[in-house]
Amino acid sequence: MPGTVYLVGSGPGDPDLLTVKARRLLDDADVVLHDKLPGPEILDTIPEAKREDVGKRAGGERTPQSEINARLVELAEAGEDVVRLKGGDPFVFGRGGEEMQYLAEHGVEFEVVPGITSAIAAPAAADIPVTHRDHASSVSFVTGHEDPTKEESAVDWDALAATGGTIVVLMGVGRLPDYTRELLNAGMDAETPVALIEKGTRPGQQVATGTLDTIVDVRDEVGIEPPAVTVIGGVAGLWRDA
Amino acid sequence: MPGTVYLVGSGPGDPDLLTVKARRLLDDADVVLHDKLPGPEILDTIPEAKREDVGKRAGGERTPQSEINARLVELAEAGEDVVRLKGGDPFVFGRGGEEMQYLAEHGVEFEVVPGITSAIAAPAAADIPVTHRDHASSVSFVTGHEDPTKEESAVDWDALAATGGTIVVLMGVGRLPDYTRELLNAGMDAETPVALIEKGTRPGQQVATGTLDTIVDVRDEVGIEPPAVTVIGGVAGLWRDA
Ligand SMILES: C[S@@+](CC[C@H](N)C(=O)[O-])C[C@H]1O[C@@H](n2cnc3c(N)ncnc32)[C@H](O)[C@@H]1O
Ligand SMILES: C[S@@+](CC[C@H](N)C(=O)[O-])C[C@H]1O[C@@H](n2cnc3c(N)ncnc32)[C@H](O)[C@@H]1O
Repeated sequence: MPGTVYLVGSGPGDPDLLTVKARRLLDDADVVLHDKLPGPEILDTIPEAKREDVGKRAGGERTPQSEINARLVELAEAGEDVVRLKGGDPFVFGRGGEEMQYLAEHGVEFEVVPGITSAIAAPAAADIPVTHRDHASSVSFVTGHEDPTKEESAVDWDALAATGGTIVVLMGVGRLPDYTRELLNAGMDAETPVALIEKGTRPGQQVATGTLDTIVDVRDEVGIEPPAVTVIGGVAGLWRDA
Repeated sequence: MPGTVYLVGSGPGDPDLLTVKARRLLDDADVVLHDKLPGPEILDTIPEAKREDVGKRAGGERTPQSEINARLVELAEAGEDVVRLKGGDPFVFGRGGEEMQYLAEHGVEFEVVPGITSAIAAPAAADIPVTHRDHASSVSFVTGHEDPTKEESAVDWDALAATGGTIVVLMGVGRLPDYTRELLNAGMDAETPVALIEKGTRPGQQVATGTLDTIVDVRDEVGIEPPAVTVIGGVAGLWRDA
């Protein structure tokens, strides 16, 4: 009997924010394939014997996606029930879509188990709501780390600025200077509130706030490092005058 | 000793998709304030004696937000630990932000506990990833049911179309004809895939797919009703040719 692959979101890092289903699947799985993003607080709850770290290869470089895909199929065909654990939600910049398609093409039974995305939970950990009747009728999640193989910019910062909604940038610590400049060039107010939340819901959580104009300096002063999300819009300033 | 108010997300409706923390808080709470959105499968797991339905008043009309706010403060001041249970995530079109601010202004201790938003989980239940390297570098959540007291449209459909990313519309069954027209007028391809997911992760889940051009007819033929989300973009067509 072949096994099943569960593409499971781990949430932002607090083990209490795993879903009931994720907790049970982790406890019952034969093998758990993961990288570092779920964080030590969750990984430490999984017996070492069934963990397989596919984040980095021996040499230190990133494991190619093709190798992870092949390993998932191999394990399932050997009859193992596999949890493929993803930080946050598997379908929010997590390559869950690609893994799912590969499994489907190879006739492997799979199930997707959503997780709490850091794009919502990291701001929430700083009491920042991504939508709010008075501030934002929409929220957009965007990657700050573009696919370098794409010829032109895949992200249209002008259009995002024009939505008038909240913008949450993932993988956006390093290129913060680039996209804040893009948003200012697109006509966004330099006073627009911006918040950075590092390690949201995890030990070592740090929050730093400023404006489109000041946030790069704030990042450097506070020393914000990945993993962090950037929240841009009125909701990031909710508490400033409170 | 005054109590604490926990603003808790219930997820899309499957009790297995509650977080470990939400499950524990529901079990330990003195009172659970809720409306119908969490769904019967979750509400039935909470003892009737501690449930307080604040969705509708005796007459059938919606309970004013001010009344819910006042009740939360009243209960906390009376020493009760209160779970304010919200469908999906409290901060995604859930008025969680407003309730949190009210509690803060009234000196009530509160904590926000994120939930799995239906904006991600309902599509996932139909194996639709809201982001995908080949299809979408961003995803936007937007309300399809605008605040009628606002003078001009709060949602800029032109800008959303221009992002090139996935658009997920909540509360958007009734006005589907209006915003699909807006998106077509904004220059989006009539062949853009669209999926409707009703009661995602719950018994009675229904999925219907079409294009910007056909989806209104599809909605009527299949009989899609609220609660449902609308997914617009390449990801909604991932499986069409598979
Ligand atoms: C490859 S993406 C995966 C996102 C994930 N699938 C999700 O839904 O949260 C990695 C990025 O997620 C964000 N991230 C993940 N965990 C985080 C946390 N606990 N606090 C802040 N940001 C986090 C950071 O922006 C990080 O660069
Ligand atoms: C007032 S909004 C609240 C959204 C909620 N806070 C969330 O994060 O999912 C209500 C809308 O959520 C969506 N919704 C909630 N549960 C759903 C489900 N199980 N399947 C599909 N859509 C759902 C529908 O668009 C519905 O009109």
